[in-house]
Amino acid sequence: MYGAVIYSPGDVRFEERTDPTLIESTDAIVRTVASCVCGSDLWRYRGITAVDKPTPIGHEFCGVVEQVGSAVTSVKPGDFVIGGFTATDNTCAVCRKNAQANCLHRSGYDGAQAELIRVPWADGTLLATPAMPDDDLIPSLLALSDVMCTGWHAAVSAGVGPGDSVAVVGDGAVGLSAVLAAVQLGASTVIAMSRHEQRQAVARAFGATHIVAERGEDGIAKIKDLTDGIGADRVLECVGTEQARLQAVGSVRPSGDIGLVGVPHGDLPTDALFWNNVGIKGGPAHVRAYLPHLLDLVLARKINPGLVFDLELPLSQVADAYTEMDERRAIKVLLRP
Amino acid sequence: MYGAVIYSPGDVRFEERTDPTLIESTDAIVRTVASCVCGSDLWRYRGITAVDKPTPIGHEFCGVVEQVGSAVTSVKPGDFVIGGFTATDNTCAVCRKNAQANCLHRSGYDGAQAELIRVPWADGTLLATPAMPDDDLIPSLLALSDVMCTGWHAAVSAGVGPGDSVAVVGDGAVGLSAVLAAVQLGASTVIAMSRHEQRQAVARAFGATHIVAERGEDGIAKIKDLTDGIGADRVLECVGTEQARLQAVGSVRPSGDIGLVGVPHGDLPTDALFWNNVGIKGGPAHVRAYLPHLLDLVLARKINPGLVFDLELPLSQVADAYTEMDERRAIKVLLRP
Repeated sequence: MYGAVIYSPGDVRFEERTDPTLIESTDAIVRTVASCVCGSDLWRYRGITAVDKPTPIGHEFCGVVEQVGSAVTSVKPGDFVIGGFTATDNTCAVCRKNAQANCLHRSGYDGAQAELIRVPWADGTLLATPAMPDDDLIPSLLALSDVMCTGWHAAVSAGVGPGDSVAVVGDGAVGLSAVLAAVQLGASTVIAMSRHEQRQAVARAFGATHIVAERGEDGIAKIKDLTDGIGADRVLECVGTEQARLQAVGSVRPSGDIGLVGVPHGDLPTDALFWNNVGIKGGPAHVRAYLPHLLDLVLARKINPGLVFDLELPLSQVADAYTEMDERRAIKVLLRP
Repeated sequence: MYGAVIYSPGDVRFEERTDPTLIESTDAIVRTVASCVCGSDLWRYRGITAVDKPTPIGHEFCGVVEQVGSAVTSVKPGDFVIGGFTATDNTCAVCRKNAQANCLHRSGYDGAQAELIRVPWADGTLLATPAMPDDDLIPSLLALSDVMCTGWHAAVSAGVGPGDSVAVVGDGAVGLSAVLAAVQLGASTVIAMSRHEQRQAVARAFGATHIVAERGEDGIAKIKDLTDGIGADRVLECVGTEQARLQAVGSVRPSGDIGLVGVPHGDLPTDALFWNNVGIKGGPAHVRAYLPHLLDLVLARKINPGLVFDLELPLSQVADAYTEMDERRAIKVLLRP
């Protein structure tokens, strides 16, 4: 089979790899129907995170089960499944707290931008749809494997609830998903910070009530204008850079909450947070906790998180997908084998 | 009138000061019935926070109103009142979010370890009891002006709810109050970390289900033993030192929450918190938000937060109160004029 391998910054290749096989009795082998490139993959592509050796890459997918190990009971060959970006047993003491991203037995994938994937802990990781989904739902189903759940996690981590004012820092696919999450969770004011017309349009389609194009102090001032002069009840930080984190700290009201899902690159001013009573919470998303509810919403066509994919390419052009996202021409690229 | 003035580290004097007078129409003058020394007062007493010049000190009190300004409507001369450790208008945009500690017009006191105090924003700061309270309730009523509300704030900030496991770092008066708060908020496992028999006894009286005397890695191991091996759902950090903060970080489970109320002296490992999905929230307590409920509980004799006072002295011996607390012979000292 073929799959993507990152060799060094800027060098992603589509090449023949050994077919994955069942190793543990809890494994499944899934033939991907769609995969995609994550903003977090770009950290390596851009050389910010080291690439020590050629490494299969990718961790978002949906597909059809080909084989299952002898201990797997909840999915079977032929099922259409969505998997989280980490494999989780969904039974350990941490998973029982609905904190599956921190599962005691969590495991990554050996590259999901590929035709076939070995999925550890298939029962705890994969969720099957009741039937083979309509093809037009594939982007939204794929979005559930990471990006939509990550946006949802930002909103849940910040405690977004009915009537809240919410500002979202970051107009990448995660930030846009966070807008959709905040709207779904009942926020009445949802401010998307974005300077890009196309991304603003997706934010509006997801239900953003306001767009703020300014950044830095000007952006903070605009958000305060929209929030009684004090800042947003909840701010969802979906980038991870120091600049984005400080934008979030400046935009939240006293005693408000910041949901963090951008991979952290920069400290947070914890003393200032303390004196302002501002909470921070977040990290890798508990995909398996959110999947059932979000899958229901997608299958009922109540949400359309697949709108974050604005480009579709054959998997064989995976290298182009990285280029398009790196140069910010595409929000997020869907890959079909 | 007489009151306490801190001159330099270790040097608190009881001396004659000018009687306070009404300055703003929203002020009240209160004759203290009781005051006390706060753990945060010790930062200056110990020279950790600078003392630039002789400064009246103290911010916890209950007492009887002597005079009110022309704009004050909710309290009147003769009322027994409790005040928060900061004066707050309770009407600004931040106060309307129940974040009174961060009131846009907040103000401190000019030394509450005194016979008379000027209270700014009397309507937004003071809460009157329905009648003159029984004398045996004075310690618990005084506790509401800071320490009990601060322990409560730790628990609220960490999101303590029914069935939670909670560990409390710090066995000072705030930590003990946090134990009481966690119990009242429905936690089923409440672990007090304390090596001192007398403080352990107060923690048990407040409803702690377990005592852990160990610190550092041993303390963390004991807490994990009591929490399915993963750490407590919520940890309440009531000291503020780097050691205590790291104790909290080590004791919380993945995706758990730390409530912070100890004045921060040391950074937090925000990257590690992120990867563990651990939330932190806290700061100065929103006393005015919590006072009505906690006052009801005290007047109904359902809680007895005054147990944190294990020594009572005349206000004139305020210097001894500092010594007793500094040398950890007393948990907290109540002062009566």
